[in-house]
Amino acid sequence: MSLVNAAFVIIGDEVLSGRTADKNLNFLAIELTAMGINLKEVRVVPDDENEIIAAVNALRKKFHYVFTSGGIGPTHDDITSAAIAKAFDDQLIKNLEAEQILIYHYGAGNVNEARLKMAFVPSKASLLDNPVSSAPGFIIENVIVMAGVPKIFQAMFFAAAKNLIGGDKVMSREIKINLTESVIAKDLTALQKEFTNVSMGSYPFDGGTALVFRSIDIVSLENAVEKMTQIIDKCQKI
Amino acid sequence: MSLVNAAFVIIGDEVLSGRTADKNLNFLAIELTAMGINLKEVRVVPDDENEIIAAVNALRKKFHYVFTSGGIGPTHDDITSAAIAKAFDDQLIKNLEAEQILIYHYGAGNVNEARLKMAFVPSKASLLDNPVSSAPGFIIENVIVMAGVPKIFQAMFFAAAKNLIGGDKVMSREIKINLTESVIAKDLTALQKEFTNVSMGSYPFDGGTALVFRSIDIVSLENAVEKMTQIIDKCQKI
Repeated sequence: MSLVNAAFVIIGDEVLSGRTADKNLNFLAIELTAMGINLKEVRVVPDDENEIIAAVNALRKKFHYVFTSGGIGPTHDDITSAAIAKAFDDQLIKNLEAEQILIYHYGAGNVNEARLKMAFVPSKASLLDNPVSSAPGFIIENVIVMAGVPKIFQAMFFAAAKNLIGGDKVMSREIKINLTESVIAKDLTALQKEFTNVSMGSYPFDGGTALVFRSIDIVSLENAVEKMTQIIDKCQKI
Repeated sequence: MSLVNAAFVIIGDEVLSGRTADKNLNFLAIELTAMGINLKEVRVVPDDENEIIAAVNALRKKFHYVFTSGGIGPTHDDITSAAIAKAFDDQLIKNLEAEQILIYHYGAGNVNEARLKMAFVPSKASLLDNPVSSAPGFIIENVIVMAGVPKIFQAMFFAAAKNLIGGDKVMSREIKINLTESVIAKDLTALQKEFTNVSMGSYPFDGGTALVFRSIDIVSLENAVEKMTQIIDKCQKI
């Protein structure tokens, strides 16, 4: 049994002020779950070097992978690369491959100082392919640094995904019932105690409840679902 | 000058697995910003008592207010109230007001054990009005504990908002330009150095850049926007 976990650091004043609604978390959560990587913690932090360093350093020691979004563009508020370098006691160096990509993208005469800033990444980092724009993301040890714009974030994630190693996949079954959750709560608690390797979540919606059972063990999962179905049949007959 | 800040803890395996896309963060961020409360950190944690306690205790000492969402319903996976009680070295007691609300909502004969579980809140907590459903949210010291379902989260937030004290409001101005951000990056950096009390963000979108200037000082804000407008005019004439 191999369990692989991850954390995600969303970097951006614009998410905290409400100007921008983050769209990357749900995408990342779905993709990682499908790969057998369990997302276990997310933090949203401001464009503040100390806060970025503190979050990345706390999480990279605790989880197999840490993903970040935001702050790798050409402007003064893009401080992620510098913060990540400091978090690793590393320094920013001009990456020649990144410089070539920027020159190719903008044309040799148009690579100004701001654009060239994006070629500076930590010395120990490897670049991530970015087919959408030319701003490079990168990987340093177990930290994957990506852009905040969803289209670019997604392209960089798929580039990074080739090198990620997933663990046992968590499978899930969802049962929707037209009962409020408090009607089946007691039986669900008993079932959860019986199946300790199946995580059972209960999510109310207008007019009913969605029960989500999750496990890496398919046999336990199916048995738990079968028993739950019997419980529901009984409740609905009463 | 009075600056008030806050953090938000989203509690829920379903957000981390990707089953549910959180909708509360953006709502909370917008509402708090409008009230002069600066959201400075967000964490998403699983339905795990130790993780909830660690996040709430780290954040309630650091920020004026901490909001939480999720995990206050009737089922076994709703462990937020118990975790919050532990975080405050408090215990869960049956709140008689909450019990009355549940009895009124479900009818005296229908308040089963699971439903009654929702009447148990930390002894030091005050209830939050919840006009949508009868599950009570609560406030304990500077921590505001709310439901995860957006409609209920919002109702509870407006109930809590009456007692929140905001600080100086951060005002913002947005300038949309049809230039990529790397064209104005250098001038923007210089302008940021000139106006240290205006925070300047630059957000690329397809076909242009949104510049967002934010400050609690309206005069500086307007002056910075004026200067930026001149810079843009110059760039577009070149």
